[in-house]
Amino acid sequence: MTPPSNTTCRLAVRPEGLPTRETWNFSEHEVPEPGDGEVLVKVSHISLDPAMRGWIREGRSYIPPVQVGEVMRAIAAGEVVASNFPGIDVGDHVSGLLGVQEYAVANGHAVQKIDPSVAPIPTWLGALGMPGMTAYFGLLDIGKPKEGETVVVSGAAGAVGALVGQIAKLEGCRVVGIAGGPEKSRYVVEELGFDAAVDYKNDDVAAGLREHCPDGIDVYFDNVGGEILDAALAGLARHARVIICGAISQYNATEAVAGPANYLSLLVNHATMTGFVVSDYGARLAEGARAMGEWVAEGKIKTREDIVQGLDTFPETLNKLFSGENTGKLVLQVNGGG
Amino acid sequence: MTPPSNTTCRLAVRPEGLPTRETWNFSEHEVPEPGDGEVLVKVSHISLDPAMRGWIREGRSYIPPVQVGEVMRAIAAGEVVASNFPGIDVGDHVSGLLGVQEYAVANGHAVQKIDPSVAPIPTWLGALGMPGMTAYFGLLDIGKPKEGETVVVSGAAGAVGALVGQIAKLEGCRVVGIAGGPEKSRYVVEELGFDAAVDYKNDDVAAGLREHCPDGIDVYFDNVGGEILDAALAGLARHARVIICGAISQYNATEAVAGPANYLSLLVNHATMTGFVVSDYGARLAEGARAMGEWVAEGKIKTREDIVQGLDTFPETLNKLFSGENTGKLVLQVNGGG
Repeated sequence: MTPPSNTTCRLAVRPEGLPTRETWNFSEHEVPEPGDGEVLVKVSHISLDPAMRGWIREGRSYIPPVQVGEVMRAIAAGEVVASNFPGIDVGDHVSGLLGVQEYAVANGHAVQKIDPSVAPIPTWLGALGMPGMTAYFGLLDIGKPKEGETVVVSGAAGAVGALVGQIAKLEGCRVVGIAGGPEKSRYVVEELGFDAAVDYKNDDVAAGLREHCPDGIDVYFDNVGGEILDAALAGLARHARVIICGAISQYNATEAVAGPANYLSLLVNHATMTGFVVSDYGARLAEGARAMGEWVAEGKIKTREDIVQGLDTFPETLNKLFSGENTGKLVLQVNGGG
Repeated sequence: MTPPSNTTCRLAVRPEGLPTRETWNFSEHEVPEPGDGEVLVKVSHISLDPAMRGWIREGRSYIPPVQVGEVMRAIAAGEVVASNFPGIDVGDHVSGLLGVQEYAVANGHAVQKIDPSVAPIPTWLGALGMPGMTAYFGLLDIGKPKEGETVVVSGAAGAVGALVGQIAKLEGCRVVGIAGGPEKSRYVVEELGFDAAVDYKNDDVAAGLREHCPDGIDVYFDNVGGEILDAALAGLARHARVIICGAISQYNATEAVAGPANYLSLLVNHATMTGFVVSDYGARLAEGARAMGEWVAEGKIKTREDIVQGLDTFPETLNKLFSGENTGKLVLQVNGGG
């Protein structure tokens, strides 16, 4: 029997605009050996996140860029198949920055144990993982929604947006989602319980927000940037809070990012626009995980993952994020991964 | 002897871009009579403020626009020459929204008594008036600078910026001003005590900020918008606070306002951008007036006014704000005004 090999997906060249298959290089390597304090993980599921586009961009950001030739950075989960770290055993499941590959070596301190009997592994990458923490802290810690306020979220059918809207409903807010297409709009209203949706592909977003937010927008959670951010800014209520979580409409821009032309709405409305990345909340992740875990266990928050099979589909599957094809958390299931 | 007449300056036509003399219409009227609860003020000094450009723009804002044919709105000060309001007597001096005219009738509740023996009237329109309150609340309430932090202010030699920088110095901050030209840059450093200045007319602003803010910008107080705002955003420190007080570079734009392309710096730096207008602080003006008054009286804050003679120069004098010709608070002294 041939020993198993490790298929890795590496950055081949920094893309201009949307990544293509040529952006990536798949290659076979020996399965690495874990050193002292390390574990070897057989990766089963890889989280696909908009932030990945930023990670392959040259330049200063909150995290150094992936270098050409390096395994593509990704949050992923899988089963431990060898361990030199006390407290993590073979057979345990863990998640962490394991990369787009079949086998990953990681420091035991850099991964978290997850329990597939509590929730399926894809949910650990979604509502109970980074998107869940992003929604939880972004909405509650920065947005500070109060009962009866109007919360608007863009990317409403996406991994983070769907959770933001549901948490806002649990806080007693009126919730309006901005989503692409009638099916996603139906989904956030009928299945997730949002009060209304604006279909940015078919509706005038500014007009839709005026209709559904007659008293203005108190909290706007932005995942998309661009014209939708501008439409939301135009509809702010006094003392509104705008949360900048992402700008997926801009991530593949080959020209300069379009800044929000309506930013002076902050001035006339005494409003605030605050950005964050979830790693800012490292010290409070336990709080967020506990809250999200309880809501999911009680059925108060619905989770949904869009699971695509096959490591080799990574280039095309990643781009579903940018075309808006996915509903819910986009996860790549590794060939044969549990 | 002919009875005095009231020269008024009215909005003749809404300007496209920079206002011109044709924007305005000067006309003579009878001096109005104060009704019950009103006072008649002989205006001596008119405050010229960037916000005035917004007041003549059509559309929703924090205050209704001046209509064509109406006396131009302005904060002004003068001596009471007739009073039907208990507590304000003939001979008292008051300030308020008296307009660009020689005589104004105002409700006694809508004006504030000022004391020319405490400070000259132009100072009551500057450090002790709206610009002072704007600097005080914008910097301290929104910016919340801490000792040792780096504060950057644009429009640094202007009415608000010069005060912002001096207050920040009193709070123990390192202060860098952005100003137009070598003379203003010298002024803010040598006369006002800023630590450094960047001359946006001659220097690369982003490079200048990198040089003078090696640990990043903790608080950025923006009066100008446009490319300077973008340069400051590019240099933010973690948890920076950006205060949007104005956007004078954009006020005469005939195209869409340029939004800050670098707004995603808020995201990577967990930074906040907050807008305000000083009228938001109506309930706390006494606090601000007391603090500014003490600092001015103790000589801890230097005040400077650029006083131009003659109501009829209003069209050209106003435009000094937009060409950046004034240093300090720009005040129009009415013909023969005290």
